[in-house]
Amino acid sequence: MDAAALWQRYKDWLYYHEGLGFYLDVSRMGFDDAFVADMQPRFAKAFADMAALEAGAIANPDENRMVGHYWLRDADLAPTPELKQDILDTLTSIEQFASQVRTGGIYPPGQERFTEVLSIGIGGSALGPQFVAQALGPDFPPLAIHFIDNTDPEGIDRILARLEDKLSTTLVIVTSKSGGTAETRNGMVEVRTRFEQRGLSFPKQAVAITGRGSKLENQALSEGWLATFPMRDWVGGRTSELSAVGLLPAALQNISIRSILGGAREMDAATRVPDLRRNPAALIALAWYYAGNGKGEKDMVVLPYKDSLLLFSRYLQQLVMESLGKEKDLDGNLVYQGIAVYGNKGSTDQHAYVQQLREGVASFFVTFIEVLKDRSGDSVEMEPGATSGDFLFGFLQGTRKALYENQRQSITLTIPEVNAHTVGAMIALYERAVGFYASLVNINAYHQPGVEAGKLAAAGVLDLQQAVVNALAQSSEPLTLRDLAAAAGAPDQVETIYAIARHLHANQRSLAIQGNPGHPDAIKIAALK
Amino acid sequence: MDAAALWQRYKDWLYYHEGLGFYLDVSRMGFDDAFVADMQPRFAKAFADMAALEAGAIANPDENRMVGHYWLRDADLAPTPELKQDILDTLTSIEQFASQVRTGGIYPPGQERFTEVLSIGIGGSALGPQFVAQALGPDFPPLAIHFIDNTDPEGIDRILARLEDKLSTTLVIVTSKSGGTAETRNGMVEVRTRFEQRGLSFPKQAVAITGRGSKLENQALSEGWLATFPMRDWVGGRTSELSAVGLLPAALQNISIRSILGGAREMDAATRVPDLRRNPAALIALAWYYAGNGKGEKDMVVLPYKDSLLLFSRYLQQLVMESLGKEKDLDGNLVYQGIAVYGNKGSTDQHAYVQQLREGVASFFVTFIEVLKDRSGDSVEMEPGATSGDFLFGFLQGTRKALYENQRQSITLTIPEVNAHTVGAMIALYERAVGFYASLVNINAYHQPGVEAGKLAAAGVLDLQQAVVNALAQSSEPLTLRDLAAAAGAPDQVETIYAIARHLHANQRSLAIQGNPGHPDAIKIAALK
Repeated sequence: MDAAALWQRYKDWLYYHEGLGFYLDVSRMGFDDAFVADMQPRFAKAFADMAALEAGAIANPDENRMVGHYWLRDADLAPTPELKQDILDTLTSIEQFASQVRTGGIYPPGQERFTEVLSIGIGGSALGPQFVAQALGPDFPPLAIHFIDNTDPEGIDRILARLEDKLSTTLVIVTSKSGGTAETRNGMVEVRTRFEQRGLSFPKQAVAITGRGSKLENQALSEGWLATFPMRDWVGGRTSELSAVGLLPAALQNISIRSILGGAREMDAATRVPDLRRNPAALIALAWYYAGNGKGEKDMVVLPYKDSLLLFSRYLQQLVMESLGKEKDLDGNLVYQGIAVYGNKGSTDQHAYVQQLREGVASFFVTFIEVLKDRSGDSVEMEPGATSGDFLFGFLQGTRKALYENQRQSITLTIPEVNAHTVGAMIALYERAVGFYASLVNINAYHQPGVEAGKLAAAGVLDLQQAVVNALAQSSEPLTLRDLAAAAGAPDQVETIYAIARHLHANQRSLAIQGNPGHPDAIKIAALK
Repeated sequence: MDAAALWQRYKDWLYYHEGLGFYLDVSRMGFDDAFVADMQPRFAKAFADMAALEAGAIANPDENRMVGHYWLRDADLAPTPELKQDILDTLTSIEQFASQVRTGGIYPPGQERFTEVLSIGIGGSALGPQFVAQALGPDFPPLAIHFIDNTDPEGIDRILARLEDKLSTTLVIVTSKSGGTAETRNGMVEVRTRFEQRGLSFPKQAVAITGRGSKLENQALSEGWLATFPMRDWVGGRTSELSAVGLLPAALQNISIRSILGGAREMDAATRVPDLRRNPAALIALAWYYAGNGKGEKDMVVLPYKDSLLLFSRYLQQLVMESLGKEKDLDGNLVYQGIAVYGNKGSTDQHAYVQQLREGVASFFVTFIEVLKDRSGDSVEMEPGATSGDFLFGFLQGTRKALYENQRQSITLTIPEVNAHTVGAMIALYERAVGFYASLVNINAYHQPGVEAGKLAAAGVLDLQQAVVNALAQSSEPLTLRDLAAAAGAPDQVETIYAIARHLHANQRSLAIQGNPGHPDAIKIAALK
């Protein structure tokens, strides 16, 4: 395509939203008019599906649930007055609580005020708050935020070491819809243990964000925690950033949650337009479909040219992959859908793997995110006429061009600056794009049946460990792996028992391995007395 | 495969290194004996190539360079006495310098000692140091480390805000082989400007790590910086972690660099064995080849179940993708090679995208990294008999099993703990695996010809910006984009000029856009007076 034709294509497809100052360019995706015409019926269905979803249809049929995250930023959309009031009340209670914490009206025992927030949660209960904290957290927040997002003992110890002197002024937020997520429960117990070791009252410094009637809510209420905030069953974990899950931590850092919600509301309105060319989320879904042939054949590489957006790709990884990575479509056909997402930031990643993107295996398309404003305040020049921000801009444009010249496709989003309004808008944009794409390929974007299998398998491993320890305790002598497996009633699970033995041995718990551990057939396992 | 056969396969392929306490399991990659037999000639060549490389052959023919990163941890291997002495002297000078900084023998003007390190570098000059700092940095290091790894003005401002009170006790390390990397140069100029605004002497707090005779070295020498350390032309950026690039920052944090080197040396010896089954790097290369059909058809998802290894996947992203992502093979054939790498950590990522891995598009294989030791000190039980570490272990084993049951392949590495020795070993393991794989597919793993194109394109954008600003300054009236492009002598680059105009306008520099910026044909561009 010559320069004039390419410029015409760029203009033809350019999307601009004046209120948000937001641009979207899909001209570097190679679709043609025939493809777009072919897709129109699918988009008509996608727009209709989305309208029904917003009106309160059971859009998650597997779990028999409504999908209501759009109501969170426009309570007038909620299908009942009760739901509307609930949304408004929750928002008010978050703002009041956060304000009181920030100003010292709510304070820890014996201390003037809280200085730190420790957020314990995983998946949807961590990725959004982490992304927003990095994108929008002020240089000197009223409360500094820390995260425990795993069940790694060493990782927990590291966070607690960092908080050592500040534990008495740390507000702990425990976020879990069911209260039953093992990693989160473990993080809570580990932190609580440390509190007790230090003579601190955990309940007087703790807040729960959880489902109504959950085990966690019951515990918080019965122990008199500082507060509880709701997670609704019509909000999924990966779309919960604009519920209490994301808003409470943000408000505690003095991030304007009304602006986040406002940006999302504005983008929601823009992506409600039932016209492909005038709907940025539909354009993104179109581009995804084209790139991967509707089957996820290409990875989505996300490259924001802005340090503060580093975690956006991790946030999108969950939103996109957990929503779209499905075995079956809505009609029960085996489809193995999904789109793999990765990326960090530009121009940094140019020095990591643009070599491969430009010249290597063409297994991807790129999403560039451009931020127009370089910084607050003036810039000095690095070379005549060129600031650091000009270089960042130049690297984005140059890389986009270099990829295009090598037939690598890209989408470019442009936002005026990283602020609460634009971050809210980007979250809303991708929630909608994922919803549309799911309609295009006829899958349920709102369940996650495959997550359960890993949890069950993990529980099986822990049960087996218990059986192994019990069998050893009852044995008068060391056992071979094969005999131990038989004694534990699991003759088919020798390999897992070997793994269990290595792990317990390394931690000097319950058992010891005798012999060279690299020769599984030659070792014996003995109970530790 | 039934349980007994799978257990036999596991044992048949299990690799164990007693000195390192390191295990490798490739039994969940689906290759059979016929495939392995077919690959033997390729491996014979790979072992021979590697032996030649280690002996000082020009293993990077494009750049006419030796590839000597293996000599860094075993100087006796260096092909000349001069190179050997250089390696030993550099190591000694790093240790002496770091020790003096830590103990206050080298100190900033008017202050007792340095308290912070600010590392400025990008790509290979940042990813290794960042990974090692997170993996091995003590909870309370003698000097806290910070990184500027981009040319984002806001990102730089955020780091400088964090250092505001500590700038007078900050040691700045500028790392750039050529001294010409724009992002690094910009970071240095930005930091230097801040030093001058605060009345601090930058040279008296600065260290350069750079190539001999580079612009940066000349500057450091002529201005009397605290020290300079060498980057050799026989060490590529992505394999420079065990050169001064990685060792100096590590030593300043009191990480044992001799242990890192020792671990690498031990793994180097293990991966020098010219026998596929007894060589862990060869086994990994075999698995990669099998997974992606020798063409990178599957992504490598890296999941260390340990918070401190979070950045390992970003480190590997560069090492693998920049090394293997090549357009041409060594004979000049177009091959479009590479392997895409992504991942963060388990079990956290299970809640982000194991849904897709287990049930969705099967475009990947997983590398699990297991760490046997849970923590220093004892653990409390979360449930009877189960600690936080047991859960972490259970999630890894359970996910590996659940993936296998759905025909998703995986490699599992097991290390006894995360320490300097094992981190050095893992770096060495993957350097070697990448080298072997490159031989298998007949590419040069040690150059990066595609990186230059993006830089040139970026330079072109900055030149065009200058032309636009000049053209506007000479125009008596606002211009349409088309007229501006003509006036700037770039009638074919209207789109880039539009992007330049949006960026400068947003930063109130040089020009202003008149009209609705979403309608490129209707706007006019005026010089800012």
